[in-house]
Amino acid sequence: MTLAAIIPAFAHRGVTSRPHPAADLLARRYGADSPLDAEALGPDQWNEVLTGLLSHKSVRAYRDAPLPEGTLETLVAAAQSAPTSSNLQAWSVVAVTDPARKARFATWAQNQAHIEQAPLFLVWLADLSRLDGLAKATVGDAAGLDYLETLIVAITDATMAAQNAVVAAESLGLGTVYIGAIRNETEAVAAELRLPPKVLPLFGLCVGYADPARPAAVKPRLPQSVVLHHERYVATGVEAATAAYDAQVRDFYAQQGIDAPAWSQTVSARVRGPAALSGRHRLRQILVDFGFPLL
Amino acid sequence: MTLAAIIPAFAHRGVTSRPHPAADLLARRYGADSPLDAEALGPDQWNEVLTGLLSHKSVRAYRDAPLPEGTLETLVAAAQSAPTSSNLQAWSVVAVTDPARKARFATWAQNQAHIEQAPLFLVWLADLSRLDGLAKATVGDAAGLDYLETLIVAITDATMAAQNAVVAAESLGLGTVYIGAIRNETEAVAAELRLPPKVLPLFGLCVGYADPARPAAVKPRLPQSVVLHHERYVATGVEAATAAYDAQVRDFYAQQGIDAPAWSQTVSARVRGPAALSGRHRLRQILVDFGFPLL
Repeated sequence: MTLAAIIPAFAHRGVTSRPHPAADLLARRYGADSPLDAEALGPDQWNEVLTGLLSHKSVRAYRDAPLPEGTLETLVAAAQSAPTSSNLQAWSVVAVTDPARKARFATWAQNQAHIEQAPLFLVWLADLSRLDGLAKATVGDAAGLDYLETLIVAITDATMAAQNAVVAAESLGLGTVYIGAIRNETEAVAAELRLPPKVLPLFGLCVGYADPARPAAVKPRLPQSVVLHHERYVATGVEAATAAYDAQVRDFYAQQGIDAPAWSQTVSARVRGPAALSGRHRLRQILVDFGFPLL
Repeated sequence: MTLAAIIPAFAHRGVTSRPHPAADLLARRYGADSPLDAEALGPDQWNEVLTGLLSHKSVRAYRDAPLPEGTLETLVAAAQSAPTSSNLQAWSVVAVTDPARKARFATWAQNQAHIEQAPLFLVWLADLSRLDGLAKATVGDAAGLDYLETLIVAITDATMAAQNAVVAAESLGLGTVYIGAIRNETEAVAAELRLPPKVLPLFGLCVGYADPARPAAVKPRLPQSVVLHHERYVATGVEAATAAYDAQVRDFYAQQGIDAPAWSQTVSARVRGPAALSGRHRLRQILVDFGFPLL
């Protein structure tokens, strides 16, 4: 028996013509403009973890099925294993499973029904409250927390943790989707979760089993030429790349029977002005009210 | 032949007494206070991805060995496969390999020699510049970018992308460490990389092969009881948990022959006041100068 027969991922190297698992995933992300020749990737250059990462899709339809015992703790262990700036661990997470509470979150997030459907809704918090109590008790002052810099530390800490939880969940066969729209109603969310001062609810995360009747798809991304710079930032070629990406996204939605506007139209409308921010243009003042002076 | 004999991870369920791979990892993170009974985890509750995530360690010593061709593009493909808010893709990354440039970054980051050692230094950018050009060309306005909310979107986008790259790198046998200290010298970094307005260099990331002569270790984290909340935020038990964690971190460093201060002392000193922020207390003004009005 050959190695290729034992390891299907590399069977294409033998007599069969099975494509490399990266080929389809790269095509879905980048269309014809793949940054890598999948067929040239050796066994030390591709693995199941990469297949999992590139297979990510946001799941917005869930089965009515509970999570196995211990899943939450496993996701949080993965999250806590993420890097954290200076080991400050400036984040927390609230696990919401109560149906009535999930329903309120769904309402606040512009009626996203998947928040109610998913058995678990995680609210990730940029949390300077714990450090505030600790530093005041230990050294009598915590004024470093008042700076925008330290809020950024808490946001990146919380986001690295959450993204590890996403990767962990997907490895367990679960689907996820981030819900940034909880920031549309930041005060209501903070009151619901009884957050102390110096805690920002950053985003939610639905976790559950994807409904096979309403499957999600791997979404195309901008070509690497636009996102990846070498040695210095060079902003050439953005217009042509965007036009090509617009066409790719149009095809993506057309395949799902959706007549969507071009990506450049959608994102431009999204950042056109404060009215398009769904209430989040108020976030600066809310943060000040929450005990982040943003110095 | 039994399944346990074929799959070593679950051999403990047979006649042998091999511990579950999660047991050691959970003990390293949580000491005696593990949130999960590793021996009770079935094959559908643990996998190689979770083993990888929980094995994360920050690598601050690298071998002088180049990365295989295509590694950078693979890491960026993983990064672009991460979720992004409203598909805005508000991030970019600069790949730095030039030794002289890496040396300058090392100097700016308080002489962290591993920046020079690592063959690849990635600078992750919260990037609203691309959307600025696009929205002005498409709808004639991009005023939504001027709000703190949209900076937070760019920061979380960049961080999710970067964390996927970390997971991808580790799956390929590479080590990484984030370098937040590039924000100590944000203006110098932006000038070096010729960043346009509305781009914040968020953090660096060293990528390379760990030096086996100077191995890194899995670092303990706070108990889950402090970080994970159920339904509502409850801040009880933090003091006792912190004291236990202080002892655990002291043991961790003692095992490496390091006489470190208690964690609560270290982090309290880190947030005590602006003087401890290594220049980053100026970040708010720098962001304004960089074209982020932070409305």
